[in-house]
Formats: sequence, structure tokens, C-alpha cells
Amino acid sequence: MEIVFDGNITTPAGFTAGATYAGIKKKSEDVLDLGIIYSESPCTAAAVFTTNKIKSAALVFDQQVMQKKGKISAVIVNAGCANSSTGEQGVKDAYEMASLAAQALGIETEEVLVSSTGVIGVQLPMKSIREGVRNILLTADGGHDFEHAIMTTDTVPKEIAVKVTVGDTVFSIGGVAKGSGMIHPNLATMLVYITTDAAVEKDFLDKALKDAVAVSYNMITVDGDTSPSDTVLVMANGLAGNTPITSGSSAARAFKDALTHVCIHLAKSIARDGEGATHLIEVNVKNAKTVKEARQAARTIVGSNLVKAAVYGRDPNWGRVTAALGRSGVYLEEMKLDVVMAGISVLKDGRPVPFDKPTAVNALAGKEVAIIVDMHVGKGNATAWGCDLTEQYVVINSAYTT
Amino acid sequence: MEIVFDGNITTPAGFTAGATYAGIKKKSEDVLDLGIIYSESPCTAAAVFTTNKIKSAALVFDQQVMQKKGKISAVIVNAGCANSSTGEQGVKDAYEMASLAAQALGIETEEVLVSSTGVIGVQLPMKSIREGVRNILLTADGGHDFEHAIMTTDTVPKEIAVKVTVGDTVFSIGGVAKGSGMIHPNLATMLVYITTDAAVEKDFLDKALKDAVAVSYNMITVDGDTSPSDTVLVMANGLAGNTPITSGSSAARAFKDALTHVCIHLAKSIARDGEGATHLIEVNVKNAKTVKEARQAARTIVGSNLVKAAVYGRDPNWGRVTAALGRSGVYLEEMKLDVVMAGISVLKDGRPVPFDKPTAVNALAGKEVAIIVDMHVGKGNATAWGCDLTEQYVVINSAYTT
Repeated sequence: MEIVFDGNITTPAGFTAGATYAGIKKKSEDVLDLGIIYSESPCTAAAVFTTNKIKSAALVFDQQVMQKKGKISAVIVNAGCANSSTGEQGVKDAYEMASLAAQALGIETEEVLVSSTGVIGVQLPMKSIREGVRNILLTADGGHDFEHAIMTTDTVPKEIAVKVTVGDTVFSIGGVAKGSGMIHPNLATMLVYITTDAAVEKDFLDKALKDAVAVSYNMITVDGDTSPSDTVLVMANGLAGNTPITSGSSAARAFKDALTHVCIHLAKSIARDGEGATHLIEVNVKNAKTVKEARQAARTIVGSNLVKAAVYGRDPNWGRVTAALGRSGVYLEEMKLDVVMAGISVLKDGRPVPFDKPTAVNALAGKEVAIIVDMHVGKGNATAWGCDLTEQYVVINSAYTT
Repeated sequence: MEIVFDGNITTPAGFTAGATYAGIKKKSEDVLDLGIIYSESPCTAAAVFTTNKIKSAALVFDQQVMQKKGKISAVIVNAGCANSSTGEQGVKDAYEMASLAAQALGIETEEVLVSSTGVIGVQLPMKSIREGVRNILLTADGGHDFEHAIMTTDTVPKEIAVKVTVGDTVFSIGGVAKGSGMIHPNLATMLVYITTDAAVEKDFLDKALKDAVAVSYNMITVDGDTSPSDTVLVMANGLAGNTPITSGSSAARAFKDALTHVCIHLAKSIARDGEGATHLIEVNVKNAKTVKEARQAARTIVGSNLVKAAVYGRDPNWGRVTAALGRSGVYLEEMKLDVVMAGISVLKDGRPVPFDKPTAVNALAGKEVAIIVDMHVGKGNATAWGCDLTEQYVVINSAYTT
């Protein structure tokens, strides 16, 4: 697997993208707010949607499209308005957005997925979208523009592409992401689009995406919040010309590893770009009773306000780590616990290890802080990512919607 | 039921209390850090302890004492050190603390409960405690001193006493509390002590406390954190001379109502005094499918960082309320949802209600903000309390332990 420099969703063959300023976001310099990804060859697709029981109109539309298991050729996405809690009008608007893209691209409405991200409870400005769609120019290097069009409070675009060679099969996978789930609450929504020119059988693609999501986006739980619009979509157009990858086929492992790599990269980018964040926190739980319990423990620790605030303050206050572990609901034996914070052993066999505070404070100054919890009660391992909690987070999130 | 002015744990007959500065906390003006509550007549007692799987040494000791179902005559509590994650030495120290109090009071060690609150992972300074116990003077108005001795980052002491008359039975219930669960993380721990001179049968007392805790302390979930030392204890010494109250007896309802009133009062006091808090938030979930689901929904909403930050910023951003409800895991029908924030209807039958933003911002300026969510899918009601999330919270909790 090889990382493609400056690569993104338009790196795999046959994918183009573009964006425009349609007037949905308030205008400031260089703003884009409406984008399209298009594949010249219809794609096998797999998607994972929010578990939130309040679902945006676009997401409900997408779920219906995906249930039909047809091919997907395009995605249209706007920022600045979530089209969520918008009643019957919202449902109509989501459908119209898909139709507008379909007309512009000369494809069927059922080949188009729709996402909207932004403020909840406000109707989409359809007039702007109708005009905007006509102004989108799709190009083979349009991935960057598309990324900017879906950004809300993100401070950096998030992208990656990898090239994989297995025997005589060569394919690429590209991905872009926006948001950081519950870290960017006002304009919440995590949107991830992954493209590949590999030919992939539908069932295998579903399974590979589900497994990759479990160890990436589902492990960046900052406070457990989910948005009504969270979406991870992968589109495989087959233009690499390989024999379709199925479960157990020779390229299956390589494809799954590459997809997982793309997903973890984007997930970490999201956590690192958390609002007001100054540290990426990585929590590694080892030897929990099961993998499920390891995940639960890692997510609880990385999502604890107290742990997050301690990391911000470079405070080696490991009692917050064990307290979060203790309430996570997983099986533990206190006298078997080891904790290492930023490389410093602070708890061994459940007993405090004396350490030099100034050294620990220095160790916590790095931009990435690793917390390792070895539970010694089983073989379940998991890693979760999050960011620290800063005054800036509160400032950003307490501003008026007005 | 009548509120006793300035009343607390020493209001019910036969209870005395006192405190001293033993040198466990760092000294600043008027500091107390070691206190005792004593009943001249041994008490029927009920207790509810933390569900955190990491338990402090004192809490493990208390659980063993309570399992024996004997009478309890005293509680000794220190602040400044949690005696948690302290290994075998911690267990010995908890036992010695109980013994020291028993010796000083001329009672058995098994009649004494122990609590410790403060920093995790540090051994108790037993020399200071040995000396301190001898300096505690128990008086009939010592409740206030006791309250101050158990405070950590609390800004105000939390107390209440009520007097209840049922037929010719007259009894009092008094209570004090410290902490605010996960709001005061560094010195976490919620400790609540309730005294009554009513004679109460043990099984009924257990049940009454469990029910009262369910609608009070368990409904102030700020971020789901629990401490290794959280304790709610009620001691009934019977000096009111009434026929012991049992389930179904004439005074049962009055006792339970009064106990619940005391618990809700103290729970709200704890939420209101959250670190850095400027608002008490009350979330009232109506007509959920079950009471259990109503509680889960109310706790999720009041514990959401996004809702908390919105209230701090007086931001009528109700999308955060419905998003938190959506991820709470409870059954809902979006098109039946009503939401009222600070008296203003913002969502009706799942559709946004236009409202005047400046009016809403003004309504959110009050010190108490009520959020009412009517789900219209059942008959389960619940109320939860919390506080807003402010920059000050982050400042306080990101300070070094050093």
C-alpha cells in the first residue's frame, strides 16, 4: 500500500468532483457550500448511517435509495443547512436535490445520494440550490473543491488516497471527511466519502466498510453525541478492471486493510481537528475481557470531560482515567491494572507508581498524547481517539445560533 | 411537612456532630478536613454506594459493615485524600479510621462508617488523622462544622432539615451533601448523609432510600461520571419514639415523601453548585414509553456538553436537545415531539415553531432554565438536573494536580 501525495476522492480512476458557492452559507472569502462527486461508471456502494433516532431528511432519502441495492453514480452535498427536523417539506427538498443532480448529470434520481450539514430546524433554500447545481463544474482534480464545500467549522480539509497492488491488480482508494461528530455541535455531522476504482462485490463491500467503521469512526467518541446526518459512504466503480473482490478472494485482505487505513486516517484527522483542541488523545486498552469491552472502555476514557481537561492542562491525573474505566461498565480487576500516560508508568498492578511530576507535565506537552491501559483480564484490544477540552470549545459552542 | 430554618443533620433528636482541621487539606483560612456524625442511640441504616467498579478503600469497608446489617452509630469523614487506588495500605487505613472514631466515642468499630474524598492514588496521612480525631468536639449544633469539613471545591454548603407530623407521630429528617459527582472531578465524590429521629424498619428504609435516590442523585448526571467514593447514607435512631415505620404503615408515605424531598433538595443543590456553573438546568421529559426511558432521555439531554454550552450562551439551539434525545436510545416518534425551552415553544409535533430570538435569549438569562420535552408516546415522566458548561469549568479542571 502506497500513500498518494495530495490524493483524495478524485484519485481513483473515473471519479470527478466539483463545487460552487450557492448562497446557503453566509458569504465570507472563498466559501463553497454545494458539491458533487460523480463517477462516470455506476458504482457498487456501501454506506453506514447515524444511529441517532432523529434522522435528517437527506439521510432518510439515502437509506431508501441504499435499500434498493442499485448502483450509485453521484453524491450531492450542501453545507450551511442540515435539512433536519424540517417536516414534510424537508423530505421533498431532499428528493428535489437528488433530482437536480440527476438532471444535470444525465442519470437517474435513484443513482444519487444526498447529504446536508448545518443548522437543524431550518428549511433548505431550494432556489439557491437549483441555481447552484447548474454552476458546478466537475473535474478530475475537483476533490479539493468538494472538500471545502462540505466543511463547516473544520479548520483543515481532511483527505487521503492510497494505491494498492496485489498480484497484477492495481487499484486506488480515496477519501474525504468533514466534521468531528459531537465536537462540532452547532454544525455537527460527520460526513465521509470514499471512492475506489476497484471492482468490489456488494456483500463484501458492506462487510468491509462495517468492520472498518467499527475501528475508526466509531472509536472517535468525544462525548457520545451523534448527529442526525452522520454518513460514511464508499463507492466502487470497478474501472481498475480487476476481478470483483469478494470475501476470501486474493485481494480481499489488501482491500480491507487499505480501506481500514483510509478510515482510521480520516477518523484521526477528525479527532485532531476538534473544536478548540490542542491535543490528539489516543487511548489504547489492552487485554480487556473481550474486544467489545476494550472498545467500550477506550471510548469511555477518551470521551471523559475530566480526562480531556486533564490532558489540556498537562495534568498527569491518572485517577480520572481509572475512574472513567471504572464507570465504563466493563469487567475489571483493580489489582491487575497498569496505566501508562504519555510514556510514563503511573499505575502498576493497581498500585500508584511514584513519578516525577515535572517530567510528566513535559511529556504531556506533545501534540499527541497516548494513554495505555493494560487490564490483564483477557485478550481484547482497542484504540480510541479524541481531543482535549479547552476554554475555546466552550466559547465556540456557547455562541448564539443567531 | 415543614422546612426547619437553618436545619441539617443535627436537627433530628440525638444526633451530634463536629469537625477539626487535621492537616490533610493544604491550610487556608477556616479550613476543616475531618468530621464525625454521632448518634447517642444506635441507628437503623441504609446506604447506596457508587456503581463505579473502582471503589475507594473506605467504600469497600463500608459495604462490608453494611452487609452485616448491624446498627450504625457514627460516620467519620475526611476531605483532601480519597484513599482510592491505594492498595492494601488503604484498606488498613480505612479500618484504622473507623477504629479511631470507635475508641473516641466508646463504641464498636462495626458501628462506624468511613468516607474519604480528595485526590486519588495518595495514601492517607494517618498520623494527622490519629491526632485529629482526638480534637473533634461533638455538639448538638455541629452539623455546620461537619458540612465544612467534607467540602472540597464546593462553593456553598448544602443542607436541609424537615419536620413531619403524621397523626401523633412527629419526626425530623436532616441532610447534608458535598460535591457534585462528576462536576468536581479532581476531588470528585458525592457524599450525602441523612439523619432522622424516626424509628424506621430496616427493609422499608432500604426501599425508601433506593426509591428516593432514583429520582434525585441518579438524576443529576452531568457527564455520566461517578467517583470511587460516592455514598448516600441514611441513619434512623428512633428517638422520636414512634412505632417503627414499615411498608404500608400510616406514616410510611409521609416518611418517604419527606426523605424524597430532602434528597431532591440536596441533589439540586449539588447540580446548582457545579464547577463554574452559571445556570441550573432542569430537563423534564413527559410521556416517554416508560419511566425508565424518560429517565434515560432526561439524563442524556441534561448531560450533553452541547446542550450545556448552549444554555451557558443563552442559545435557544433546540436542535441540540432533539439530537441528544435521538442518541439516548429511547423509543421516539419524531413527528410527535414537542419541545419548550425556558417557557418558549420551539418544536411542536416535530416541526419547528418560529420564535423571536431576542425574547428566547432573554428567557435563557434566568438562573434556572427549564427544558420540557413531551414525547407523546407513553406515560413515563422524569426530571433531571444539571448545570451549564462554562470556560471556568475547563479552567478549574485543567489545573495541575501539583
